[in-house]
Amino acid sequence: MSHLEARRERVYDCMAQEGVSMIMFEDAEGRRDPAVRWLTGQPGDALLFLTVDKQSILVPWDINMAKVYADADFIVPYAEFCRQNIQAILGAAEFLKVPYGSRIEIPMDTSYRMFLQFVDQVPDFDILCRTGGVHESVRELRAIKDEAEIRIYRQVSEITNEIIDLLEEKIRSETLKTETDTALFIEAEARKRQCEGTGFETLAAGPGRSFGIHAFPAYTDAVFAGPGLSILDFGLKYQGYTTDVTLTFVRGPLTKQQEKLLSLTERAYKLALSMAADGISAREMAAAVDALFGKSGKAMPHALGHGIGLEAHEAPFLRNRSDNSSRLQAGMIFTLEPGLYHASQGGCRLENDILLTDSGVEVLTRARIVRL
Amino acid sequence: MSHLEARRERVYDCMAQEGVSMIMFEDAEGRRDPAVRWLTGQPGDALLFLTVDKQSILVPWDINMAKVYADADFIVPYAEFCRQNIQAILGAAEFLKVPYGSRIEIPMDTSYRMFLQFVDQVPDFDILCRTGGVHESVRELRAIKDEAEIRIYRQVSEITNEIIDLLEEKIRSETLKTETDTALFIEAEARKRQCEGTGFETLAAGPGRSFGIHAFPAYTDAVFAGPGLSILDFGLKYQGYTTDVTLTFVRGPLTKQQEKLLSLTERAYKLALSMAADGISAREMAAAVDALFGKSGKAMPHALGHGIGLEAHEAPFLRNRSDNSSRLQAGMIFTLEPGLYHASQGGCRLENDILLTDSGVEVLTRARIVRL
Repeated sequence: MSHLEARRERVYDCMAQEGVSMIMFEDAEGRRDPAVRWLTGQPGDALLFLTVDKQSILVPWDINMAKVYADADFIVPYAEFCRQNIQAILGAAEFLKVPYGSRIEIPMDTSYRMFLQFVDQVPDFDILCRTGGVHESVRELRAIKDEAEIRIYRQVSEITNEIIDLLEEKIRSETLKTETDTALFIEAEARKRQCEGTGFETLAAGPGRSFGIHAFPAYTDAVFAGPGLSILDFGLKYQGYTTDVTLTFVRGPLTKQQEKLLSLTERAYKLALSMAADGISAREMAAAVDALFGKSGKAMPHALGHGIGLEAHEAPFLRNRSDNSSRLQAGMIFTLEPGLYHASQGGCRLENDILLTDSGVEVLTRARIVRL
Repeated sequence: MSHLEARRERVYDCMAQEGVSMIMFEDAEGRRDPAVRWLTGQPGDALLFLTVDKQSILVPWDINMAKVYADADFIVPYAEFCRQNIQAILGAAEFLKVPYGSRIEIPMDTSYRMFLQFVDQVPDFDILCRTGGVHESVRELRAIKDEAEIRIYRQVSEITNEIIDLLEEKIRSETLKTETDTALFIEAEARKRQCEGTGFETLAAGPGRSFGIHAFPAYTDAVFAGPGLSILDFGLKYQGYTTDVTLTFVRGPLTKQQEKLLSLTERAYKLALSMAADGISAREMAAAVDALFGKSGKAMPHALGHGIGLEAHEAPFLRNRSDNSSRLQAGMIFTLEPGLYHASQGGCRLENDILLTDSGVEVLTRARIVRL
C-alpha cells in the first residue's frame, strides 16, 4: 500500500467512526487545503471526495497535471461540473451512490454564505460543517508526520543547512550585498537542488527595516547585513514540504539595547528548546518565553512557533492564547522562533525546525545569529 | 482630502444607506482582504473598523509597520485585544460608542463556524454576514479604479513593458537559458525599478511543461524557450497594484497542431479585445471565446480574464458561468488571457492588461507571442 493509500485508509476509518458517508476537500485560491495533496499527490487546485466505502474521486482544474501527479480511484475534470463545487458534490454523490439522507462533511472553513448554499442546493443529504469532525481529525493526522514525511524533512533540512552555510560564507565575503541578492541567491540555489521553490516569500530585511516582524516589502535593493541587525527568514519547499528558518546577521558596533535584544532572544530560544517534550502544553512553552521577555520589559509581538509541513503554518500552534489547548507529540515538526523588534534599534529573530521524537528533540536546521 | 480619506467617505456613505453602524475588515493569513490597504495604506495583517459616524480604527499585528504606512483615526495594536478578532470587535464597538442593538457587518467570507462564534459572543449587536451588503459594495468600488490607481497602473505597466522588451532581447540572445534564469531576472529587474516584488509566483514553463495551465513547480532548472511552446506568466507589484501578463515563446519547427493552438489563441485574443466595451456582459465575452475554440474542437480550461488591482484576481471575472452577471464598466482594469493546452504538444497563452475608459479600450501592456 502506498503512503497515499495508507493516509486515505486512516481517513476512511475516521469517517466510519463518525458516521460520515462522504467528505469533500477543497484546494482552491483563497481556500487552500493541502490535505488534497497529502491524500492524492495532486499539488493544488482540485476537489477531492472520499466515501466511507473507500472510494476516492479527484476533481482537478488541470487534468493534464493530475495525469502526472495524482493518485485516486477516479479523476474527473472540474469542467464536467461547470466548475462549481455544488455541482461537483452532487455529481460525486450520485456517481459513488452515496445514500440519500446520509451525512456529507464539507470543509471546516466553508464560509457562512457558502454553507447556506450547500444546505439549500444539496437537500437530499445532511451537510456537516463543524469543529471536531473528520476534517479536524485530518489536520491532527497531518500534524504527526509519517515515515515518508520525516524522510523528506531530513532531505530538505540538509539542503536548507547547505544553503545557510553558503549564505554565511557569501555574506561574510560580501559577494551578496543587497537584500535582493540574498533572496534571489536562495531561490536559485533551491532549484539547483531540486526544490519546488521557497515555501513562502523570503524576508530579507537589512538594518533599516528589521524592526518589522514581516518586513514589507519582503526584500528590496537596500543593503543587507550592514551595521546593525538584519533578519533573513526563508524556507525551502521540497516535494511539497517546507522548512522555515530565520537567521539574524549582526554587524557591530552595536548599542547596548541591540545586544540586549540579541541575548534575550538567544536565552528565549534555549529556554523553549529545553522545554520541548512529548506531552507539553504548547501554550505553556509560549507563556514561559513571554514571561522571560516580560521580566526585561520586552514583549514578543508574535507566537513562539508553529507546525510546518505542506503548509508553512499548520498545527501545532505554539501561542500563548487562552483558546490554545494543543500539546506537543512525538512526530510533530515545528518551529521555535523567538524574536524582539524595536522601532529604531531594529529587530532580531532566531528560528529553527524541530522534530519531536519519542526520545527527545532533534533540531533539524542550523539557523543562527551570525556575527560579522 | 487624501485618496484614502475619499475612499473611506464612500464606504461611510454605503454604511449610512445600509443602516450599518460599524463594519469590520480583516486582512489575515488565509483571509486576505486588500480593502484594508485600499482604505488605510497598511500593507497587510490588520483589522479595520469603520463606524457610520466616520471614525476608523486600525488594529495591526505589527505596530511599527503601521506607524510607517497607515492612515486611520486610531491605531491600536492587535496584542491589546489578545490577538482575537472577537475581542477586537467588542473593544472597537465600546471605544467608538457603537449603540447596542445596532448592525455590525463582518466580512462576507467569514466561515460558518466563526459566524456562530460572533453571534454567540457579540450578543449586544446585530451581526451581519451577507451578500449584497457594504462589503460587496466595497468590492464593486475597488473594481472601478480611481485616478490615483490609474496613475499607478500607467507606471507599473510601463515598467512591465520595459521588462518584456528586455526578456525578449535576452531570450533571443540566449543570455537567459533556464526557467529559473528567466524568473529570477524578472524578480531582480522589478526591484531595480522600485517594485514591491512580483504580484504572484512567476510561471516559466519550457516546452516540456507548458501543457499545464499553471505549471508546477512554477519554475525549475529546465531549459526555457527551447523547441516548441514555452509560457511565461508574471506580474509586477508596484505600490500594491499588480500587472498580470503572459507571453508565449515559440521556437520552430512546429507541428501543425502547435500552429493551430497559436493561431486560435491569437484569434480569440483579438475577438475578446474587439468585444470589450462599457456595459458588455463579462459572461458573453467569455462565451464567445469558448464558442470560437469549440468550433475547432478545442476547450479553454480556464476563464477568459479577471480584474487586477491590489489582488492578482479580483472583480470583474470574465468567465462563462451561469452565476456570472457582471458587466464591464469604464474604470475597470482586467486581463484578457485566452489559452489552449495539449498534453503532448504543449500550451500557449496570450495575456494583457486592459483599461476600459469612456472612449474605449486601452491595452496597457505589450505581452505577445514571440517567435524565436
